[in-house]
Amino acid sequence: MRPSGRAPDQLRRIELVPGFSRHAEGSCLAKFGDTHVLCTASVEDKVPSFLRNSGRGWVTAEYGMLPRSTHTRSDREAARGKQSGRTQEIQRLIGRALRAVVDLEAMPDTTIKIDCDVLQADGGTRTASVTGAWVALRQAIDRQRQAGKLARDPITGQVAAISCGIHEGAAVLDLDYPEDSGAQADANFVLTGSGGIVEVQGTAEKAPFSEAEFLALLTLARKGITELCAAQRAALGLTA
Amino acid sequence: MRPSGRAPDQLRRIELVPGFSRHAEGSCLAKFGDTHVLCTASVEDKVPSFLRNSGRGWVTAEYGMLPRSTHTRSDREAARGKQSGRTQEIQRLIGRALRAVVDLEAMPDTTIKIDCDVLQADGGTRTASVTGAWVALRQAIDRQRQAGKLARDPITGQVAAISCGIHEGAAVLDLDYPEDSGAQADANFVLTGSGGIVEVQGTAEKAPFSEAEFLALLTLARKGITELCAAQRAALGLTA
Amino acid sequence: MRPSGRAPDQLRRIELVPGFSRHAEGSCLAKFGDTHVLCTASVEDKVPSFLRNSGRGWVTAEYGMLPRSTHTRSDREAARGKQSGRTQEIQRLIGRALRAVVDLEAMPDTTIKIDCDVLQADGGTRTASVTGAWVALRQAIDRQRQAGKLARDPITGQVAAISCGIHEGAAVLDLDYPEDSGAQADANFVLTGSGGIVEVQGTAEKAPFSEAEFLALLTLARKGITELCAAQRAALGLTA
Amino acid sequence: MRPSGRAPDQLRRIELVPGFSRHAEGSCLAKFGDTHVLCTASVEDKVPSFLRNSGRGWVTAEYGMLPRSTHTRSDREAARGKQSGRTQEIQRLIGRALRAVVDLEAMPDTTIKIDCDVLQADGGTRTASVTGAWVALRQAIDRQRQAGKLARDPITGQVAAISCGIHEGAAVLDLDYPEDSGAQADANFVLTGSGGIVEVQGTAEKAPFSEAEFLALLTLARKGITELCAAQRAALGLTA
Amino acid sequence: MRPSGRAPDQLRRIELVPGFSRHAEGSCLAKFGDTHVLCTASVEDKVPSFLRNSGRGWVTAEYGMLPRSTHTRSDREAARGKQSGRTQEIQRLIGRALRAVVDLEAMPDTTIKIDCDVLQADGGTRTASVTGAWVALRQAIDRQRQAGKLARDPITGQVAAISCGIHEGAAVLDLDYPEDSGAQADANFVLTGSGGIVEVQGTAEKAPFSEAEFLALLTLARKGITELCAAQRAALGLTA
Amino acid sequence: MRPSGRAPDQLRRIELVPGFSRHAEGSCLAKFGDTHVLCTASVEDKVPSFLRNSGRGWVTAEYGMLPRSTHTRSDREAARGKQSGRTQEIQRLIGRALRAVVDLEAMPDTTIKIDCDVLQADGGTRTASVTGAWVALRQAIDRQRQAGKLARDPITGQVAAISCGIHEGAAVLDLDYPEDSGAQADANFVLTGSGGIVEVQGTAEKAPFSEAEFLALLTLARKGITELCAAQRAALGLTA
Repeated sequence: MRPSGRAPDQLRRIELVPGFSRHAEGSCLAKFGDTHVLCTASVEDKVPSFLRNSGRGWVTAEYGMLPRSTHTRSDREAARGKQSGRTQEIQRLIGRALRAVVDLEAMPDTTIKIDCDVLQADGGTRTASVTGAWVALRQAIDRQRQAGKLARDPITGQVAAISCGIHEGAAVLDLDYPEDSGAQADANFVLTGSGGIVEVQGTAEKAPFSEAEFLALLTLARKGITELCAAQRAALGLTA
Repeated sequence: MRPSGRAPDQLRRIELVPGFSRHAEGSCLAKFGDTHVLCTASVEDKVPSFLRNSGRGWVTAEYGMLPRSTHTRSDREAARGKQSGRTQEIQRLIGRALRAVVDLEAMPDTTIKIDCDVLQADGGTRTASVTGAWVALRQAIDRQRQAGKLARDPITGQVAAISCGIHEGAAVLDLDYPEDSGAQADANFVLTGSGGIVEVQGTAEKAPFSEAEFLALLTLARKGITELCAAQRAALGLTA
Repeated sequence: MRPSGRAPDQLRRIELVPGFSRHAEGSCLAKFGDTHVLCTASVEDKVPSFLRNSGRGWVTAEYGMLPRSTHTRSDREAARGKQSGRTQEIQRLIGRALRAVVDLEAMPDTTIKIDCDVLQADGGTRTASVTGAWVALRQAIDRQRQAGKLARDPITGQVAAISCGIHEGAAVLDLDYPEDSGAQADANFVLTGSGGIVEVQGTAEKAPFSEAEFLALLTLARKGITELCAAQRAALGLTA
Repeated sequence: MRPSGRAPDQLRRIELVPGFSRHAEGSCLAKFGDTHVLCTASVEDKVPSFLRNSGRGWVTAEYGMLPRSTHTRSDREAARGKQSGRTQEIQRLIGRALRAVVDLEAMPDTTIKIDCDVLQADGGTRTASVTGAWVALRQAIDRQRQAGKLARDPITGQVAAISCGIHEGAAVLDLDYPEDSGAQADANFVLTGSGGIVEVQGTAEKAPFSEAEFLALLTLARKGITELCAAQRAALGLTA
Repeated sequence: MRPSGRAPDQLRRIELVPGFSRHAEGSCLAKFGDTHVLCTASVEDKVPSFLRNSGRGWVTAEYGMLPRSTHTRSDREAARGKQSGRTQEIQRLIGRALRAVVDLEAMPDTTIKIDCDVLQADGGTRTASVTGAWVALRQAIDRQRQAGKLARDPITGQVAAISCGIHEGAAVLDLDYPEDSGAQADANFVLTGSGGIVEVQGTAEKAPFSEAEFLALLTLARKGITELCAAQRAALGLTA
Repeated sequence: MRPSGRAPDQLRRIELVPGFSRHAEGSCLAKFGDTHVLCTASVEDKVPSFLRNSGRGWVTAEYGMLPRSTHTRSDREAARGKQSGRTQEIQRLIGRALRAVVDLEAMPDTTIKIDCDVLQADGGTRTASVTGAWVALRQAIDRQRQAGKLARDPITGQVAAISCGIHEGAAVLDLDYPEDSGAQADANFVLTGSGGIVEVQGTAEKAPFSEAEFLALLTLARKGITELCAAQRAALGLTA
């Protein structure tokens, strides 16, 4: 039995609220149960120096948690003066995930910065971030296209992310915080809408896991990602 | 005429949503029109070293803006590695404002940290922060009292804040961003529920202002603060 | 009775020593009793990036305290690796105060940096800084004008600052450290030579204060600023 | 054809030189072809604060690259004043990998810090680090045991790491720099000596990859890890 | 001919003003011509952690330059967020110089921090710092002794410092800024009152120098130090 | 008797291994007994901003110690976020030493960065660094010359460094760690191949030293430097 009473292959209640932010070119409040992440996409008419004169644009991400998004308050990273290793790992992951479905040559001289800020955390903040970030990115690029700034659509597909894990001996989908903190193993999967693997991060927390266990997690992830991609399309009023 | 069409002494639409955050001991989403600030109160059973063995508790505040809360994206302070002077000024102001209505001797061995995070900005983020922070603080202290941890109520009154300014020659209440960026002068007032002045910060932006102008701003502020204090009580279901 | 025996509306002994520094384009050692601040003005033939090609110059300020300017030694900010919130507040205040009496369009492509370094502190360091900084600025601009580098005088008036407070129930002018640390309320006023209000910062330290108390402080401040402006002119050999 | 002429399932020449460092309690120079990493293990008789009075010890790792270990010089992280996100990711990975084969309760009040410093880089620095770190850790713990400081052996098994990738359409083992920079996808595998999966990190660099491709990489990894574990035992004179 | 017209073995005009600072336990304004350094000594009743329970006290120093002490303004180290290598070299030198004439076992549980802040610079700031620091230290220790806090005098002798250099082919004493910036070689000597060498730092700026040249500088230094030690005693009213 | 059994004027076993690093334009592993420093030279086709359009190139150095190069582990400077004062002193010294034998006008638009990284420390790391750095620099410049990038040879001579000290009353050459930590006085000498003094740094550790003692150290240093210069030439296959 899962603490939440969910079936092993059941996602939490997913809500993707596009256009949540008044100022950003694209935005999405992504709710995976009690995990709430505000994703915004900001468009800039320049590129980082390593891409200057390359004909290519850039998509990158930053991640943060409000100090009291968590059960007990964490120090504010701005006050401590540096971002933790965990923060940097997650924001690098979000950026790579999005770039896997963007043709950077179709957005020359353009940088899109995705900010994923966790308003409330209950496990799975990185997967909610990736999933919501794609919606914000899609909105921002639509807006650029409507303004006639992009000759063709740089987005080549959908991308979403979900966690799976082994909890009390069973493979389960979309871990919440109570499951996450007690899992024997957990893995984050970033997949495209067409089922391609973009990123896999699996970690044994208590004991090494087997190939069979790993494949069971991947099967669950495929199911979850299919549902998340449907939710992304529904949020934006897109057909499959 | 104000850009928003408001009367000179008219606040923006005010919404104070208590208990917005699932984890914090107290919280309030404070909306002053399109300015939205999430205020949380976190209780810790210890005090900073300068108060150790003093028999007194502490109330302090931190402030931050999400990078894309503003019209154009600002750098993330955690990524830059330091908080700006403006951020530090504001968080010091919020802390002082709250401590003006707290009897620290009534909360020994207890620190309450208020986090004010701006989700969306349209002028007046510091005044929305102070006003929402009091609600979050009130909730957190009520919870401590219900848990039997405080012998008496440390809160001695209400406190709220509002900005006023001279815009196109007229004194106006509760400046939004278009007014704020074009004001000749502006002032932030922190007043108690009983009308006492806790903090006044007036700045001439274009030309020095006169004592008469300053007093006109103070009169507007009194009206605004009265309404904000009523909104605080309504949000918490308190009688005057 | 004031600890120093001064009358309530009496300044400390004021000394403004222009040209104290051998290298700076303008300088002033400002002494308010035992508070001694060395103010220098440094001229640079460039402007910050946000003013490039704007036709406007810039005036800015930095502030610091020698580690043992105070009763007990404070950590050196350069060794700690960052400036405190208080330092940043004060240097922003000094900059705003000076810019209120400078026409930046009359000093294109020119930045003047004011450094206010506290050699000895006994309360009121920010007000001594503003008052001395104006003298240093006046000197530096005179020197630029004599060198034929400015077509017209960018300085539009005098500016000075003074603190007032409620000490043992009475409104008093120019608080020294013993008064400052025991005041019920204190306020810093930055006024122009012609009496306009540039900045007001009032804070209730122990209990909220009333409008009447605030106006009493403002009346004292006007008297003090008149005397400080006379001292500025005397130091520089100017007629009113 | 691989640039190096190796067979698809062929490791580079592996050398593990234990005891390379004169001062450290354990050490190993790990050479995977032209990738050379110096791993040292330092024993301290204390634990981090979050483990105090827990009865458990700790194993952690730090990672660095000499500025000119790479083809073109990189900035020195100590001079830049912070570790990159990549550095932090890698050192967290090394620590997790080692802790997967250590029973921390068998080493109370003891911290072992592993330093992995890349003297020369040619791809696969993190996998050489994990593989060499285990040798250094084994040495340090043997020394502690010989000194009578540990009642039982905290090490529960071997751990090693290897990268695999899809290069020019083929799955290959142990990528060197020319392969790594041109791979369609790559994955790092951390496995135990008994074949359990400790950590999997797979990333699509150019296009998403399929489950079949992923499993081909895992198969290669198993072969490589078996050889690396044999090399670890040979280096230390252990029997399987 | 020296730019200043001084004889080769002639010091600049030396002034040592003890007790310059109102708050510090010891202080001295050290003037070597136009180089002015404010030295203060602050006494604390604790020692750094590496000396805890050692029965020994500690003497250490910090050094800083006001941003406009120099011909052109330098960035403020507190604003840049770190002390330069030069600053750290100098403050380490001052600390070592003083500790050479202090018996730390005679001042248990006591730390004296010397701050040397350059108000105006014209070459030789480190030598003026050492020379003035000794006066401040002597005052602070006398005060401790008068307060009955030290059983015996920890100071074992005088220490002072002077620079010498080869300028236009000639060995000269006490370089000012024009000489310093054009010297072929320069050396700083820290000597005790009894002529012992505490520290020698010689650097060839343009071309290597010979042993004979070096000895000529040392001879000049001895003469200068004798005069500086006399000035220290005169400033404090001590007999030789 | 020296702890190592060496004669007073005897160097440790010296090994200079040129070309140790695969990627760097020049490199040398310098071994002074158990002190091992990896020196690399990296060539860049640009100069720092203060030399732009000057027609001059630049040679600079950075220094670091692996955390466990020492007897007990030191914190990693990259993790602490800043380089120590000692590190900065040493890297400034190495840079000055090399520039003393380089004609920067003969290497326009070229910067050579020397990295000296201590793999193992047993005293004298700065002198091994200078000595090995010259070999790496010589290699890098030879390579530039062979590539036709330098019209003439910028290197004007050899430079090497050695420490001497007073240990148990006797002057000894090339202190190892046990001697260094117990020396009454020690001095580092940087001399050119033709015997000119480039840098002298002498420090009394326990008691001031005399001129005669200092000259005895210099005599020892001359002998050592002559041998080190011969070793440099031998390593590179150069004739005197």
